[in-house]
Amino acid sequence: MNIIDIITKKKNNEELSYEELSYAFNGYLRKEIPDYQMSSLLMAIVINGMNLKETISLTDIFLKSGEQYHLRDIMDDVVDKHSTGGVGDTTTLILGPMCASLGLKMAKMSGRGLGITGGTIDKLESIPGFRVNLSKEELINQVKTIGFANCAQSDNLTPLDKVIYALRDVTGTTESIPLIASSIMSKKIALGAKNILIDVKYGSGALMKTKEDAEELANYLKKIGAYYETNVECLIDNMSNPLSQAIGNVIEVIEAISVLRGKECILKKTCVEITAKLLVMSKGIPYEDAEHLAENSITSGKALNKFMEFVSAQGGSIERVYLSDKRIEVKAKHDGIIKNIDALGAAKLAAKLGASKMTLDDTIDYSVGIYLKKVKGDEVKKDESLMTLYVKDYNQEFIEEDFSFIEY
Amino acid sequence: MNIIDIITKKKNNEELSYEELSYAFNGYLRKEIPDYQMSSLLMAIVINGMNLKETISLTDIFLKSGEQYHLRDIMDDVVDKHSTGGVGDTTTLILGPMCASLGLKMAKMSGRGLGITGGTIDKLESIPGFRVNLSKEELINQVKTIGFANCAQSDNLTPLDKVIYALRDVTGTTESIPLIASSIMSKKIALGAKNILIDVKYGSGALMKTKEDAEELANYLKKIGAYYETNVECLIDNMSNPLSQAIGNVIEVIEAISVLRGKECILKKTCVEITAKLLVMSKGIPYEDAEHLAENSITSGKALNKFMEFVSAQGGSIERVYLSDKRIEVKAKHDGIIKNIDALGAAKLAAKLGASKMTLDDTIDYSVGIYLKKVKGDEVKKDESLMTLYVKDYNQEFIEEDFSFIEY
Repeated sequence: MNIIDIITKKKNNEELSYEELSYAFNGYLRKEIPDYQMSSLLMAIVINGMNLKETISLTDIFLKSGEQYHLRDIMDDVVDKHSTGGVGDTTTLILGPMCASLGLKMAKMSGRGLGITGGTIDKLESIPGFRVNLSKEELINQVKTIGFANCAQSDNLTPLDKVIYALRDVTGTTESIPLIASSIMSKKIALGAKNILIDVKYGSGALMKTKEDAEELANYLKKIGAYYETNVECLIDNMSNPLSQAIGNVIEVIEAISVLRGKECILKKTCVEITAKLLVMSKGIPYEDAEHLAENSITSGKALNKFMEFVSAQGGSIERVYLSDKRIEVKAKHDGIIKNIDALGAAKLAAKLGASKMTLDDTIDYSVGIYLKKVKGDEVKKDESLMTLYVKDYNQEFIEEDFSFIEY
Repeated sequence: MNIIDIITKKKNNEELSYEELSYAFNGYLRKEIPDYQMSSLLMAIVINGMNLKETISLTDIFLKSGEQYHLRDIMDDVVDKHSTGGVGDTTTLILGPMCASLGLKMAKMSGRGLGITGGTIDKLESIPGFRVNLSKEELINQVKTIGFANCAQSDNLTPLDKVIYALRDVTGTTESIPLIASSIMSKKIALGAKNILIDVKYGSGALMKTKEDAEELANYLKKIGAYYETNVECLIDNMSNPLSQAIGNVIEVIEAISVLRGKECILKKTCVEITAKLLVMSKGIPYEDAEHLAENSITSGKALNKFMEFVSAQGGSIERVYLSDKRIEVKAKHDGIIKNIDALGAAKLAAKLGASKMTLDDTIDYSVGIYLKKVKGDEVKKDESLMTLYVKDYNQEFIEEDFSFIEY
């Protein structure tokens, strides 16, 4: 076998066999195939695509490059969830405890943010003392006893995915349904949940630009799941609006607690829906019953208790979280109705405040963020506050465009 | 400007500006853009193509990365020729002297062979003493006085093309009409001939697989030429048959001399045609007159004299060339008519004998080769010789398949 022949086949839009994909990708992991050959192959895959068979092969190659946790063999009702990115997406911190309080087991590995996209791990690290690195034993033990753990991606799982993801990031080869599907699914299968719900986002700021692409990705995810006897269901969501009113790190943790305390908002509705669906998948009960149970986990305070248990199990002190006390109110220039809040614009403003890393060398200011005082459809009067900015210092300069993501 | 944005644009099949191409390619030459980003961009270009505007931009970027000789400003009637590859293609060594004997000036830079494709420089190096490296001054001086020089590609001309060509070779990105066109034309424009004839080959063994592709390449070559006020004409040839009866190094030099001595064969017809076309392009005379002049350059012995003058100017001793005296006759197994001689098969057999480098570390045996005793359409009797093999030693083993490229 020869790497040039493999690249040429994909360039000519031919199907690659398991052996050919393994030769190329495992060769890359072993540093026998150089970066420049892998990036050429990746670009051919991005443009010409891979069919389901090839995508399952690549998922399997990613999966077998590392350790597997086989969680479903150790305990019952293991579920998992994933979101392909969203602004103000604090769902994991809310629905993980909700699921745990209802007897489901969720071992969630999350990523860090880069550029304007936030990462759950960054939000968790905004809680003083919180340990995001758990050993396999710590993770399994915490999920067994508490029902929920949320840690950073382990280096032992799918190491091949890790190096390929890093190369894709710097070679313009991120936007590819088969590559995204095998990256997500290999990590999920490596953990071993029986039922997985995946929130596939589409829209201008998302990896999937159109609903059709999102549906195709969902189809790949489900079929890869089926190959590994794993039940995958997908929500397909437009991500053009922020998922919650809070965008930042500490501010999103605080918002998660508010929702667990019963705050009625879109974020809560989303978490109830996902939790209910996972209950249906795992327990086989009717959706209405599941929805009722999910709602009840919040009103009873059980989900909030689970959240506190989970945070303290991983060493975090919620009472010590710090949200900047330097606040700026952004006021409406005229009366109106909120027509749209663009997620990408909101994320860019949060990034400008310092809420995310723009390069790998940046540091995050956990205490800054945005709180949207108005949501889509709300009425607003001139000089009323549209949003509160939590800033590092009052000297930061803004231009009109920074706030134009709210249309009214 | 940002390399990821540039790669993503081409991935999305959008047009790149001169500035974007320059940022990427000159950045690569300056080692600011790493291999893996360039190979990703190259694959996107190979699959999604480049329009004429982009191809002219890239040609210009290649051209301006190095020195330019501006030969047309130093002397009149400067012509050039190029072939996109062929088996037994000894045309340069024949038509260069023919053109020179008719008052045209040809400064030809050639390449080395790799794999089963032979290179003119290897053939020239099979002449003891022959110097393939000429300085700019030596080249110009020899063309001024003798009318023909043939040397290796100078490092000072289009250095960017050189590094890109090397990267394309190892990343499966060789087959691309815009990349081939800009590579060929930048080197030609850097020398500065006013009239150029390019032999575009197509067929299973060629870079262009179909006649349509060959015609598209020819169209790009002509239009790039027009942009630089250079007249480019193209011959479009199927390369499924070897161009001459001799395939090897020394044996091709000897065959070239035979043609210059008046041997009637397809190779001679091709050289007369190309020389005549260059005369028409350069002098504006009718084709019939030009053809007559080209024929006459051989019958008068003037072209042969030019050949000898050219070889000795570059230090070569024709009398010292050595063709192996170990010969094997490959005999016909039955009576028949030669239906086809496959160029690729002939080249593979010559390579097996040692006539070309299969890897960069190999050495070439100049003395080995094949002489086809029969050409397409010839009658052959059982036990009559189909070809003579000039071998290194008699112990080399052959299988039936080695000779199956002759169909009869």
